[in-house]
Amino acid sequence: MTGSRRGRPGYDQESLLLVAVKLFNERGYDGTSMEDLSRKLGITKSAIYHHVRSKEELLRLAVDRALDGLFAVADEVQAGDGRAIDRLERLVRGSVGVLVDRLPFVTLLLRVRGNTKVERSALARRREFDRIVTDLVTEAAAEGDVRPDVDPAVTSRLLFGLVNSLIEWYRPRGGQPDTALADAVCAVAFDGLRRR
Amino acid sequence: MTGSRRGRPGYDQESLLLVAVKLFNERGYDGTSMEDLSRKLGITKSAIYHHVRSKEELLRLAVDRALDGLFAVADEVQAGDGRAIDRLERLVRGSVGVLVDRLPFVTLLLRVRGNTKVERSALARRREFDRIVTDLVTEAAAEGDVRPDVDPAVTSRLLFGLVNSLIEWYRPRGGQPDTALADAVCAVAFDGLRRR
Repeated sequence: MTGSRRGRPGYDQESLLLVAVKLFNERGYDGTSMEDLSRKLGITKSAIYHHVRSKEELLRLAVDRALDGLFAVADEVQAGDGRAIDRLERLVRGSVGVLVDRLPFVTLLLRVRGNTKVERSALARRREFDRIVTDLVTEAAAEGDVRPDVDPAVTSRLLFGLVNSLIEWYRPRGGQPDTALADAVCAVAFDGLRRR
Repeated sequence: MTGSRRGRPGYDQESLLLVAVKLFNERGYDGTSMEDLSRKLGITKSAIYHHVRSKEELLRLAVDRALDGLFAVADEVQAGDGRAIDRLERLVRGSVGVLVDRLPFVTLLLRVRGNTKVERSALARRREFDRIVTDLVTEAAAEGDVRPDVDPAVTSRLLFGLVNSLIEWYRPRGGQPDTALADAVCAVAFDGLRRR
C-alpha cells in the first residue's frame, strides 16, 4: 500500500528501511525514536511518514523480510523428500544463506524481545520455525541418523544457536561466496570439528 | 574497596549487583539509569552510592565476574598438558560451566558494545580469550586432530558462537546437573550430530 508512495528524492521505502534497520540494530528498537531516524536520514518526520505509517511498521517490514526468507526455505525443505537428516542439512544451509543475504534483517529479528504486537507476532513465527526444526531432528532421530545421546529439543537449539551466532561476527565481503560459510557450519554441526 | 560498605539493610553490594545486572539485561546497559535502578531496588540513589561509585562500576563488577571465570578456565587449560584438541574440549566444557554458573553476568558481557572505558576493556579481554581459543584450534589442526577443510579462525568462532548462543535459551533448573549441557555442546561441536 505504501510501497509506491514517494517522499523526498533520495529515499524510497526500501532505502529508508535499510537505514532504519541499521539504526535499530545499533541503538535497539526501543531506544530509537522517529526523531533519531529523521536526524539520521536528514529528512523531516513527515517525509518519513510518506513512506511508512509508524516506527512499528518499519519493524514489521524488517522482521518479515527475515522471516519470509526463513519460511521460504522451510517450505521448500518440507515439500522435498529424502531422509530427514538431509532435509535438516538443507534447512541449515538455506538458513545460513538467508542470514548472509539479509543480515541486518535477521540480526534485528533475533534481538526482538516481544514488547509490541509486531514483536510478539515475530516471536510466534520464530517459535513456529523452531518447531519445524525440532520436528525434523526428531524425525531424523527416529530414522537413526542422529546421535541418540542428545535430546532432539536440545540438538535443535544447539543447531540454530550455531546458525544464529553468525550475526555476532559474520560480515559479508564482496565477491566472497557464501557457500563456504554454510559448508563450515554444516561440517561442524553435522560431523563435528574433530578429524576422524 | 566498596565491598565492605553497608547501605540500607536488605542489600549488600552483591545482592544489589544481581538486581542491577538483571535490569541491564532486560533494558540494556545504556537504557538503564541509576534512577531506574533505585526504583527497582526501592532504595534511594544515595543508598546505592553507599555500595558502588557509579553505574559503570556496577558494569565493571558484572563483566569481571564473567571474564574472571572464563580466564580461570583458560589459565587452567593452558597450564595443563595433553593434545590441543583435548585442552580445547576442556576449555569449551569449562566455559559452558561458567556460563551456567554466572548466566546473568555472561549474558551482560556478551551484549557489551564498547561505548565506555569499562566496555572497551571488556571487549579487549574478550578478544584475548578468543585468541586463546584460535591458538588452541590452530595447534590442534597442526597436530592433525581438527578437520582440515575448515579455517581455524572460522572454527573457533563457530565453536564459541555455539557456546555463547546458550544464553539465548538456557535457563538453569534447580537440581539439574550442568554437565549434561556441556556434554551435549561437546558432542555436537566435536563429533557432530550425525550418527556414525
